[in-house]
Amino acid sequence: MRIAVIGLGLIGGSIARAVRERVGAQVAGFDRDTAVSEAALAAGVVDRACATAAEAVGSAQAAFLAVPVGALSPAVGAALEAAPGDCVVTDVGSTKRAIVAAHTDSRFVGGHPMAGSEHSGLRHARADMFDAATWYLTPTSATSPDLCERLRRLLEAIGARPRAIDPGDHDRLVATVSHLPHVIANVLVAQAVATLPPSELHGSATGPSFRDATRVAGAPSPIWTDIYLTNADLLEVALRETVARLEEFHGALLAADRSRIDEFVASAGAAHLRLVEGQP
Amino acid sequence: MRIAVIGLGLIGGSIARAVRERVGAQVAGFDRDTAVSEAALAAGVVDRACATAAEAVGSAQAAFLAVPVGALSPAVGAALEAAPGDCVVTDVGSTKRAIVAAHTDSRFVGGHPMAGSEHSGLRHARADMFDAATWYLTPTSATSPDLCERLRRLLEAIGARPRAIDPGDHDRLVATVSHLPHVIANVLVAQAVATLPPSELHGSATGPSFRDATRVAGAPSPIWTDIYLTNADLLEVALRETVARLEEFHGALLAADRSRIDEFVASAGAAHLRLVEGQP
Repeated sequence: MRIAVIGLGLIGGSIARAVRERVGAQVAGFDRDTAVSEAALAAGVVDRACATAAEAVGSAQAAFLAVPVGALSPAVGAALEAAPGDCVVTDVGSTKRAIVAAHTDSRFVGGHPMAGSEHSGLRHARADMFDAATWYLTPTSATSPDLCERLRRLLEAIGARPRAIDPGDHDRLVATVSHLPHVIANVLVAQAVATLPPSELHGSATGPSFRDATRVAGAPSPIWTDIYLTNADLLEVALRETVARLEEFHGALLAADRSRIDEFVASAGAAHLRLVEGQP
Repeated sequence: MRIAVIGLGLIGGSIARAVRERVGAQVAGFDRDTAVSEAALAAGVVDRACATAAEAVGSAQAAFLAVPVGALSPAVGAALEAAPGDCVVTDVGSTKRAIVAAHTDSRFVGGHPMAGSEHSGLRHARADMFDAATWYLTPTSATSPDLCERLRRLLEAIGARPRAIDPGDHDRLVATVSHLPHVIANVLVAQAVATLPPSELHGSATGPSFRDATRVAGAPSPIWTDIYLTNADLLEVALRETVARLEEFHGALLAADRSRIDEFVASAGAAHLRLVEGQP
């Protein structure tokens, strides 16, 4: 199978590694940073480092666009122009409404793997990045069922769990489980640095719960600014809801209302079991 | 060295394991749940399982009170009554102002290790729990310098990094780096369960960033309700500050103000490097 991967960062590099190692695919890669393309070739992440995205896509059966959300739409458009008629073209962007509305070509399927890490860049790419990870797909009535099915099988072959979802449902979901937690991680570290006594400001004051809660706070700003802006309306709803919940807790604390606080914590514990550990 | 550990849960059990394995101490343990005491003896976590806290403390040179904050003050009082005149008595409670104000005995030193896990109970106790962890101590002018020094050396011997801090500074610090992140983890899971489409509610929708951000959301409610209530005033300040920061971000998002969002994310990235990774 011939695969093109455009953008050889953490996610693109991991896709390339996974399809080479798990499917034995031939991978043509492109990154706008030539040094990254060359490093990918040298490290055996790709079989070919192409000079242009069009060259990488030109003979592919499946093409993955793994570029930042801010650069995504023109990249998808260019890939669709260059790709053969039977090539499925997909992306890995964190928001789906805008990109799906912009590209109604039957070969395009929007996608988003629920995977990643606080690290970015090719050197952190791993073939097992998508093991057991949900990989959302947003086919529409315009999408070729055959090409979508080819993509599904490919994703399953690299260990992921493809799931079809409406683009709007997807964006509402990631506003709550991804974009909001990223905003909050940023708020928590900024607040801690502004609040702590200077003597305790060198990592000494933070325990494991703070480190985990803020792990993604360093996520690269140009990428995330675009993610937030392309999902601004739904992220705003999620932020308003969070502020309301924090104020509800604050009210219980001001009233020293032990039973309301107990209930807040206990119901969150039940929600955690259900959502994170998958218990009914 | 003879050590008493009162309360053989995650933290008490880990202290017992650590002082036995790393210092070769003789450990007398007590837990109000007899089954836990017996399990601790059977698992070699303690040398003796005592029938009362007073018996465990009676011949100790250092006594650790590792009981929930809500039960702590009477437990410290009882331990000080039963302990020999040259025994240092300390606790591991998550808040320090109330307990330090309540016990002015020269043998008492308030303490709080910045360690733990989302799991609770003896079976998760580990001898390496405190490796490289800051362990705050709150000696006062009433505290015996010799006994405090004995405790410091003991904590260093089990791998921890003891640091003296004012009880008020401690409580302000943990409001920001521990209690607030716990509240927020609870808010995030409750909000996600209330918001997500039912089809995505079985762990499938959550990626690694959500799982880490909400890892502590299941922390046991009676314990945490007491922690929140004993630090309510400072936690309220932290909550107000968080809401203000969320609203500031919300304003930038409503205005689609790319440069303010960029700056928000970039400054959080810098704060993260400084606070979590210890860079200057």
